[in-house]
Amino acid sequence: MANAMLLPVLLSFLILPFSAMALTQDFCVADLSCSDTPAGYPCKASVTAGDFAYHGLAIAGNTTNLIKAAVTPAFVAQFPGVNGLGISAARLDIAVGGVVPLHTHPAASELLFVTEGTILAGFISSGANTPYTKTLYPGDIMVFPQGLLHYQYNGGSTPAVALVAFGGPNPGLQITDFALFANNLPSPVVEKVTFLDDATVKKLKSVLGGSG
Amino acid sequence: MANAMLLPVLLSFLILPFSAMALTQDFCVADLSCSDTPAGYPCKASVTAGDFAYHGLAIAGNTTNLIKAAVTPAFVAQFPGVNGLGISAARLDIAVGGVVPLHTHPAASELLFVTEGTILAGFISSGANTPYTKTLYPGDIMVFPQGLLHYQYNGGSTPAVALVAFGGPNPGLQITDFALFANNLPSPVVEKVTFLDDATVKKLKSVLGGSG
Amino acid sequence: MANAMLLPVLLSFLILPFSAMALTQDFCVADLSCSDTPAGYPCKASVTAGDFAYHGLAIAGNTTNLIKAAVTPAFVAQFPGVNGLGISAARLDIAVGGVVPLHTHPAASELLFVTEGTILAGFISSGANTPYTKTLYPGDIMVFPQGLLHYQYNGGSTPAVALVAFGGPNPGLQITDFALFANNLPSPVVEKVTFLDDATVKKLKSVLGGSG
Amino acid sequence: MANAMLLPVLLSFLILPFSAMALTQDFCVADLSCSDTPAGYPCKASVTAGDFAYHGLAIAGNTTNLIKAAVTPAFVAQFPGVNGLGISAARLDIAVGGVVPLHTHPAASELLFVTEGTILAGFISSGANTPYTKTLYPGDIMVFPQGLLHYQYNGGSTPAVALVAFGGPNPGLQITDFALFANNLPSPVVEKVTFLDDATVKKLKSVLGGSG
Amino acid sequence: MANAMLLPVLLSFLILPFSAMALTQDFCVADLSCSDTPAGYPCKASVTAGDFAYHGLAIAGNTTNLIKAAVTPAFVAQFPGVNGLGISAARLDIAVGGVVPLHTHPAASELLFVTEGTILAGFISSGANTPYTKTLYPGDIMVFPQGLLHYQYNGGSTPAVALVAFGGPNPGLQITDFALFANNLPSPVVEKVTFLDDATVKKLKSVLGGSG
Amino acid sequence: MANAMLLPVLLSFLILPFSAMALTQDFCVADLSCSDTPAGYPCKASVTAGDFAYHGLAIAGNTTNLIKAAVTPAFVAQFPGVNGLGISAARLDIAVGGVVPLHTHPAASELLFVTEGTILAGFISSGANTPYTKTLYPGDIMVFPQGLLHYQYNGGSTPAVALVAFGGPNPGLQITDFALFANNLPSPVVEKVTFLDDATVKKLKSVLGGSG
Repeated sequence: MANAMLLPVLLSFLILPFSAMALTQDFCVADLSCSDTPAGYPCKASVTAGDFAYHGLAIAGNTTNLIKAAVTPAFVAQFPGVNGLGISAARLDIAVGGVVPLHTHPAASELLFVTEGTILAGFISSGANTPYTKTLYPGDIMVFPQGLLHYQYNGGSTPAVALVAFGGPNPGLQITDFALFANNLPSPVVEKVTFLDDATVKKLKSVLGGSG
Repeated sequence: MANAMLLPVLLSFLILPFSAMALTQDFCVADLSCSDTPAGYPCKASVTAGDFAYHGLAIAGNTTNLIKAAVTPAFVAQFPGVNGLGISAARLDIAVGGVVPLHTHPAASELLFVTEGTILAGFISSGANTPYTKTLYPGDIMVFPQGLLHYQYNGGSTPAVALVAFGGPNPGLQITDFALFANNLPSPVVEKVTFLDDATVKKLKSVLGGSG
Repeated sequence: MANAMLLPVLLSFLILPFSAMALTQDFCVADLSCSDTPAGYPCKASVTAGDFAYHGLAIAGNTTNLIKAAVTPAFVAQFPGVNGLGISAARLDIAVGGVVPLHTHPAASELLFVTEGTILAGFISSGANTPYTKTLYPGDIMVFPQGLLHYQYNGGSTPAVALVAFGGPNPGLQITDFALFANNLPSPVVEKVTFLDDATVKKLKSVLGGSG
Repeated sequence: MANAMLLPVLLSFLILPFSAMALTQDFCVADLSCSDTPAGYPCKASVTAGDFAYHGLAIAGNTTNLIKAAVTPAFVAQFPGVNGLGISAARLDIAVGGVVPLHTHPAASELLFVTEGTILAGFISSGANTPYTKTLYPGDIMVFPQGLLHYQYNGGSTPAVALVAFGGPNPGLQITDFALFANNLPSPVVEKVTFLDDATVKKLKSVLGGSG
Repeated sequence: MANAMLLPVLLSFLILPFSAMALTQDFCVADLSCSDTPAGYPCKASVTAGDFAYHGLAIAGNTTNLIKAAVTPAFVAQFPGVNGLGISAARLDIAVGGVVPLHTHPAASELLFVTEGTILAGFISSGANTPYTKTLYPGDIMVFPQGLLHYQYNGGSTPAVALVAFGGPNPGLQITDFALFANNLPSPVVEKVTFLDDATVKKLKSVLGGSG
Repeated sequence: MANAMLLPVLLSFLILPFSAMALTQDFCVADLSCSDTPAGYPCKASVTAGDFAYHGLAIAGNTTNLIKAAVTPAFVAQFPGVNGLGISAARLDIAVGGVVPLHTHPAASELLFVTEGTILAGFISSGANTPYTKTLYPGDIMVFPQGLLHYQYNGGSTPAVALVAFGGPNPGLQITDFALFANNLPSPVVEKVTFLDDATVKKLKSVLGGSG
């Protein structure tokens, strides 16, 4: 068959469906300059391969802080390519003695993959308040169901690193201590809803930057 | 037109589509004797009007307890008719001085409708830890987004009552204090992930029935 | 431990994750000035606690009308805080003898909670046209599956009031009689698709404000 | 490249991933002998190509009945292969003068494709009760949004045929007249919730097989 | 009852709920001038009946091309009325000897309804690579699960026509040969990821308009 | 406050809500002995911490095969704890010169995180057949939208390893070459739907274990 002869015919075929398909949505890279919607950000008009890759997790987070740990997110705000795809990621660095304090992700389940060191992790069920805890080594994975309280801390004598994946582009991160003590929620309210005493609440507010 | 004449013809019409439609799913009352699935329980084979109504919220919960409050759920476990319908409810009774301590619903947003008394309620955002608080009177409604920490307490001098609706048949209820102190999660772990001191953790474990 | 010493270190930790999390979507209060999308309205840029509470259901609806009933909605149009949260509400007032005529909610299931009086309610299944009917008293709840025809009427000698919750922020309300008789759909069409006679259709069109 | 040499190596590769993938869910043909769930039927263990094709729509429905029309469904009950796939179909035959009376599909939107004859179709919006009506000829398509009242009737002098597709495997079909008049819902209740008079209700109950 | 007397009262009733319901979302016809979102396009402000019907599938596609086939889509880009409704359609024309080459729809399952001629169709499962193939005649339907490779070709001696419905408004269409050979993906890459030899890749790139 | 005194009262409070909450669904570990459903497997009755962790990705896959690569899945079949959680994972080992051939995941988007070596990866859009390709180094992530053709190969001189996360518990894996050549789909059909010549198809069928 003579290809040269086929080309004109074929191209007329190609042109029709391609123009017709021009608005097909294979992906929807977030246009962060627009308002968010309940299903995610409006789609950026023009994209390149760079929109689908992210390099920010290649660099260790700075763990020189009180919790000796750092969470480096690649959520939709940092990595707009995940918008609408039902997935995102973060890097977790935990120095020796460090901890990611008790927290939840309100909008997605989490899958943790240890790449270095030893991580002790656990979550607590809502019905019976049962703790589910594991010691994790490099190559191990663990899941934390959406919305349930969980924590991770370094259980070894070397720094620990993990990649964390989420089943949503914008999982959120609510650290219980920060929610209680890093704002101006009045101490009497905090005490009433937690059963903590006034001295404890005031001390933690002071440490975590809260007032009231 | 003579109705008597029409009936035989019409009935043959009626019989065909109705048998064809026999497996249509208008609703799916939970068969709690089966295993749950990620989308809810398998459907009960035979249902009556009684499966779609529930009387358990008509009775005030017993508030003679430490928190002087009671949550009476009408979730799928109590009211199987909500299975698959994306909605459920609960009744909230809060005596004078009572409180529903800090908690989350991992699997649904909440809408609270005050029917009696005065309720002070608030939730905390995950991003900036901003508290959003309101004083609510009879007839007022307030929403608490899925998975975010929130609380309610009686802010008046008479008992408070509220109906609570959830945008899911099985919202869950994770009370932070119970998750931390009403189980056998070891005290050193609780302390590490909360920044609370040993005395506080041990005292609350003792009060809330935890060990370790 | 000296808190004063910890603060500089800790704050550097706090600043990093918070700026990174700035676009986290805990909620999405509707910006009603924007176009709706299939998943709801774009999110309002700046919100306050007032966006999450609504007072419009505290006031009884005016039942001085033909049906002696009033539906007061707190859907996304009235209460933008429910946008994206999978829940909304309405208040139902039914005077003695009043009725909420046969209707459907195309986009959500309904949960009705009686607060005063006696309500007779029912829905009809689509497969076998089976009616499911109940007499409801204060404290009773009943569910009406999405899209199915249902009704409520006052079955007692005192006014009835109910809170209605929906498993979606914008459930819709299609009253069958209004859909048929309160517009300009030509009478012959209405007659053809309902089997009603011309006199009945013309009378109801006249009463309900329709033409044609 | 010597294929003979490659085979042993390659096959060891093939065997591993294939056994690992054995439970992958590409599809989920309904096992109608099991209970339904809110997301559809459990999957049949063993399937063949025949499970994915259906011949029942090739035969014209019998329109020798009162409405001179027939709806032949290919929903999950008739065509188990659509289970979990978010789609199903039906065939519509409308004789001259025939009508598919006012109805809704509670669980899916509809797309109608006319293959023969002329069909007059319309739906009514819920907000403003606006009718949207069209005359459709062979090759024309029209959509009817989920849960909204709509109808189709033959607008020509030859039989009309259409294929109907639904955005769900089990859309349901609630014909308003059948819901009101083809069951034992008491006439006074029907009258109260429709504004129809007693004679009309009793006549239609008699024609459509209802009692009470 | 005097209708004249009722009207003023009733109209005051009608006006209230209708204004309240003004933003109800029964449908969301795409405003294609706006950016898409992960859930579909923003809604057009003003719609007419014409927005819900489409005539483009009434005309046979031009099959005078290499594959002797034409796909005429009625996706959201061509038929904005399907936006948000979970359904769309296309027309398939296959001349004698024509073929719709191996392809997938990444975002919806497909239901094919043959209206003329004979179509041989098949899809391949992902787990065990099992082909499921059928010969289809007028009136037959077949489903192709979301994302799986499938094909259709004319198996008879007359032109074949089919209506295709999709369980989503924007299913996408990825033709494997076009994805591999109709762009500038370098030949060595194509060869590496397909096991095809250089001559085959270069020939197909030449035929299908690719370079590199 | 005397804890001893509080305990009896408090415990009565604890017992009530906990029994009421007994069927709350925080998670739904798959019971693989049951039939799958469209939303995932029924939930296992009794779970332990071990159900939420998986060690199978700690071990390098065997790359001594034709493609010099191995995919080790932690999908619901291998790791039942991910059932219903919207996430899963896999380990990717690619020896020097190795390749994961062109493939799709029909049921989830993918996020790849390189832990060792250099990976060249790309996907092709469906509308315009545009390739999006990147060279990825340790710490880099890239996303591949659901259902789109993509590939990965080792672009360096050392083995490459990656963790892959998916936004669903059962993403599927359809390798184009295996779908075409590793089964009994007749060669003339394969040739017709791919434009490949008979010699190429027969050779690849021979190499990949297909017949026909």
